[in-house]
Amino acid sequence: MTDNNSQADTAVAIETLLTQRRSPYKFDPDRDVEEQDLRALFEAARWTMSSYNAQPWRYIVGVKSRSPSVWQQIYEVLVEGNQGWAEHAPVLALGLTKSIFEHNGKENKAAMHDLGAASANLTFEATARGISVHQMIGIEPDKAVQTFSLPQEIIPLTALAIGYEGENPKLATELAERDNRPRERIEVADFLISGHF
Amino acid sequence: MTDNNSQADTAVAIETLLTQRRSPYKFDPDRDVEEQDLRALFEAARWTMSSYNAQPWRYIVGVKSRSPSVWQQIYEVLVEGNQGWAEHAPVLALGLTKSIFEHNGKENKAAMHDLGAASANLTFEATARGISVHQMIGIEPDKAVQTFSLPQEIIPLTALAIGYEGENPKLATELAERDNRPRERIEVADFLISGHF
Repeated sequence: MTDNNSQADTAVAIETLLTQRRSPYKFDPDRDVEEQDLRALFEAARWTMSSYNAQPWRYIVGVKSRSPSVWQQIYEVLVEGNQGWAEHAPVLALGLTKSIFEHNGKENKAAMHDLGAASANLTFEATARGISVHQMIGIEPDKAVQTFSLPQEIIPLTALAIGYEGENPKLATELAERDNRPRERIEVADFLISGHF
Repeated sequence: MTDNNSQADTAVAIETLLTQRRSPYKFDPDRDVEEQDLRALFEAARWTMSSYNAQPWRYIVGVKSRSPSVWQQIYEVLVEGNQGWAEHAPVLALGLTKSIFEHNGKENKAAMHDLGAASANLTFEATARGISVHQMIGIEPDKAVQTFSLPQEIIPLTALAIGYEGENPKLATELAERDNRPRERIEVADFLISGHF
C-alpha cells in the first residue's frame, strides 16, 4: 500500500506502530472506515492522561457516508489548501478543547497539550488497525465556532482526516508525490536542551 | 507489580499498551532506567507528527544516578505537591515548546498540542518497555526559565517523572493508595460535541 519510505529511519529501535505512522495525502476515497473501528479510535483518545484528569479533549466527527452533513460542515471549516486533498478522506473530525476547568472555573493551561496527547493515542490505535490519520492546524476557528454554535470555553484547534491510504488518481500529482518523500526529523540532540541519558 | 485496577475498563477493545498505561505515584527508587531505554523513549517522541513538521517539542532530562545536578534542578522546579512523590523517580524531565516557527518567525499555535502528542508517543514507548511515566503540569515556569537560562521563545509547560512502578515504603500512604483507585473517564459521548460514528 505504501512505499519504501513508510518506515521511519530511527536511530534506535522503537515500536513499529510508531515508525509505521505517517500523515498521508493519498486517501482511498472508496474505502469506508467501519463504525466499530471509529469507536475504537475515540476509545483510545478517551484513556489518555490529562492534567487533573480533566479530559479537556473534544471532537466533532463527520463520516461522509453515514453523516454527510456534519462531514460537509467540517470540510468547509478547513482552509482551502487542505480541502484539496482532505475531500477524499471518508472521515473528517475537528479537535477542540474545553479551555476551562470544571472544578474551579480557571483556565486549563494543559488543554491543548492534552488534546495533542489524545489525538496521538487515537492515531496510535488507528495505525494498529491499518487506518491513517492526517492532522491539520489549517482550519478557520471562527467559522467552526459559528457553524457548530460553540460556547466560549470550547476552542477549535485541529482537524483530522481519517481513512485508508491508497492510490487516488483524483489527487493532484504534486500532493501524491509528497507521500513518497522520506520522513525527516531533527536529531534527538537538537531538541534536548539540557541533560543527557 | 500493579493491582487489578491497572487495566482500563474500556467500552470497546483497544491496544493493550493504551489500556495498561497509568500515571503512578509509586516509583521504585532503587531501579534505574537504562540509557538505551531512555534513548528509545526520546526517539519515539522524535517521530511524532507536528504542524508544518516544525517539531516544536523540547526536553530537559535529568537522571538521578548519571546527571544528578540536572535531576536536582528539575526537581526544584516542581511545585511542592509534586516533589513529595516525584523525588522517588530515577528520571525527571521537563517538557517545553519552541513557540515560534523557524521559517517565518510567527507564533506556532500548535506547539503545546504537538508537545502533548510527542509526550504521548514517548509514554507509549515507555509502556512497551514496562516503564511508567507520570506527567505533571505543576511546575514553576519562571523558575525553569531562570534555572536553565531559557530564551524567550522556549516555553516550559510540563514535567515528566520516569521510572519503574514498584512498592515504595517511603511514599506517603495516601499517595500509594491513590494508585489503587480505578481509572475513571467520562464517556466518549461526553466529549463528542457533534456527529456520530
